[in-house]
Amino acid sequence: MDIIYLLDLIGTFVFAISGIRLAARTDMDVFGASVVGFVTAIGGGTVRDLLLDNHPITWMGDITYPLVILAAVPFTYFMGKKLNNFSKTLFIFDTIGIALFTIIGMEKALSLGLNPFMAGMMGMISAVVGGVTRDVLCREVPLIFRKEIYATACLLGAMVFYLGLELNLPENLNYLITTAVIITVRTVSIKWNWSLPKMKG
Amino acid sequence: MDIIYLLDLIGTFVFAISGIRLAARTDMDVFGASVVGFVTAIGGGTVRDLLLDNHPITWMGDITYPLVILAAVPFTYFMGKKLNNFSKTLFIFDTIGIALFTIIGMEKALSLGLNPFMAGMMGMISAVVGGVTRDVLCREVPLIFRKEIYATACLLGAMVFYLGLELNLPENLNYLITTAVIITVRTVSIKWNWSLPKMKG
Amino acid sequence: MDIIYLLDLIGTFVFAISGIRLAARTDMDVFGASVVGFVTAIGGGTVRDLLLDNHPITWMGDITYPLVILAAVPFTYFMGKKLNNFSKTLFIFDTIGIALFTIIGMEKALSLGLNPFMAGMMGMISAVVGGVTRDVLCREVPLIFRKEIYATACLLGAMVFYLGLELNLPENLNYLITTAVIITVRTVSIKWNWSLPKMKG
Repeated sequence: MDIIYLLDLIGTFVFAISGIRLAARTDMDVFGASVVGFVTAIGGGTVRDLLLDNHPITWMGDITYPLVILAAVPFTYFMGKKLNNFSKTLFIFDTIGIALFTIIGMEKALSLGLNPFMAGMMGMISAVVGGVTRDVLCREVPLIFRKEIYATACLLGAMVFYLGLELNLPENLNYLITTAVIITVRTVSIKWNWSLPKMKG
Repeated sequence: MDIIYLLDLIGTFVFAISGIRLAARTDMDVFGASVVGFVTAIGGGTVRDLLLDNHPITWMGDITYPLVILAAVPFTYFMGKKLNNFSKTLFIFDTIGIALFTIIGMEKALSLGLNPFMAGMMGMISAVVGGVTRDVLCREVPLIFRKEIYATACLLGAMVFYLGLELNLPENLNYLITTAVIITVRTVSIKWNWSLPKMKG
Repeated sequence: MDIIYLLDLIGTFVFAISGIRLAARTDMDVFGASVVGFVTAIGGGTVRDLLLDNHPITWMGDITYPLVILAAVPFTYFMGKKLNNFSKTLFIFDTIGIALFTIIGMEKALSLGLNPFMAGMMGMISAVVGGVTRDVLCREVPLIFRKEIYATACLLGAMVFYLGLELNLPENLNYLITTAVIITVRTVSIKWNWSLPKMKG
C-alpha cells in the first residue's frame, strides 16, 4: 500500500507545519515550535494507540515519522512567509491528511475487533487530537471546536468508509471514495461558509 | 450491582452536561461541545485505566457510556436555560457521580492489587481528571484548583470506603455510607462557604 | 545505585516545588497546588512509561515518589518567600533533576530495545513533559518553548550519555559526565543569556 504510506507521510509533514506555524505566531523558539509540530503530527495517532493498547505506538516503531516531522522545522523556517503562497496546497494536503488519519485509525480499530461505532470514534480521535493539543499548547480555544465542518467531514468519511467495507469495495477504491467525500465536504463547507450551530449558552 | 451501574450512567450523563454547558459559554459549536462533554465524562476513567493498564478502557468496552454522553448533547441543547431551574438536581447527581467515580476507581485499583494509598489516588484521578480537562479545553484555570472542597470530599470518601472494606461492611452499605459522606462534605462546604487555604505566593 | 536514586528523589522534590510555586502565583488553593506539583514531578515519567508500555508506571510501583511530592506541599507552604533565598540551590537541583530524568528515561528505553534516537526522545520527554503540563494547567505558554536552552541541554546530554555507553564507560562516570554537561550548558546559557532563535512568523 505504497501510495497510502506516502500520503500518510505527507499528511504528517503538513500537520507538523501547521503546528510549527501556530507556534511561531505564539512567539515560541525553534525548540518549542518543533515540539508543537511534533505533537500536532503524532498526537492523534498516539492517543488512539494508547487507547487501543496498540504497541509500539506507530511513530515509535517507524523512525520515518519523526524524521519527516524534524524535516518540517527547517522547511517552515526557511520558507517563512513564502508558505502563504502555498496555502491552497497546504490546505489540500492537510485535508488529505485528515481523511487518511481517519481511515487509518478506523482500520486499525476494526482490525483489533472493535465495533464500527468505536472504530469511527478512533478514526476521529486520530484526526482531531493533534490539532486540539496544538491549540491548547498555544493557548487557543481549539479551532475545530469553533469553526469549520472539520470533524463532521471526518465523521461522514468514516461512515462512507464503513459502508465501503460492508459492500466489499476494493480497498483502493474505498480509500479514494472516502478521501473524496472528506475533501468535498470540507472544501464546500469552507467555500459556502457552512458551520455547525453554536451550542446555546 | 444494577443500582450502581445506573447511578454511574447518570453521573456520566451529568458530567457530560457540565462539559457541554461550559463549552457553550465558551462559544463552541455543537461538535466542540460534544467533545468537551465527552472528555469531561470519560476523562477520569480513561486516565485511570491507562495508568492501571486496564484494557479495554471502560467506555470502549461498553457502548452504553458513549451513547449516554451523545444523548446529553441534544438534551442540553433543547433544555437550554431551563436547566438553570434544575441546578440543584444537577448538583446532587454531579456529587453522586463524583462519589461513585471515586469508589469505582478505588475498587478497580484494589482488585488489581494496588495498596490503599495508590487506590485512593486512582479514585481521585477518576473523579477529578475529567473536570480539569474540561476547564483546560475551555481555557479556564481548573475550577477545583481554586474553589470548593471537591477533592477533599473525594479524599475523605476514599478513606471511609477503605475503612468499610477493612470492617467487612456489606458492599451496598459501604457504597451508601461513602456516598453520603462525600455528598455531606461537599454540600456543607458549599453552604457554609468553606474553602481550602490558598497556597501562599 | 543509591546515589542516583537519592538524586532522582531530590529532583522529584524540586520539580514538585516548582509546580507548587507556580500554582500559588496562579492563586490556587492547597489542593490545586498539590496536584500541579504532582503532575510537574511525575508527568514526564508517566508519559514515557505509557508510551513504552512500561507498567507499573514508576511512581505507582514505588510509594516513595508520591510521599516525596506530598512532603513538598507543607515545605513550600511554610518556607514561603524564604525559598527565594535558595533560588540558586533550587536551580542546581532542578538542573540535576533534568539531567537525571533524561538519563533514566534513555536507559529505560534502551533496556527495552529502542534505538538510540528514540531513546533520546524518551529521555527528553521524561525531562520536559512535567514542566509543560504545569504551565498548561496554570495557563502559561510553556516556559521552555520560549526561553532557556533547557531542552537543548537535555539533548546534548542524551548524546553524551549515548557516546559514553558506546565507549563502555563505567556507569557512574557516564552519569557524572552527562550530568556535568547538562548543568554546564544550562548554567552558561542562562549566565550569558543565550537563547534559541525564535521561529519566524
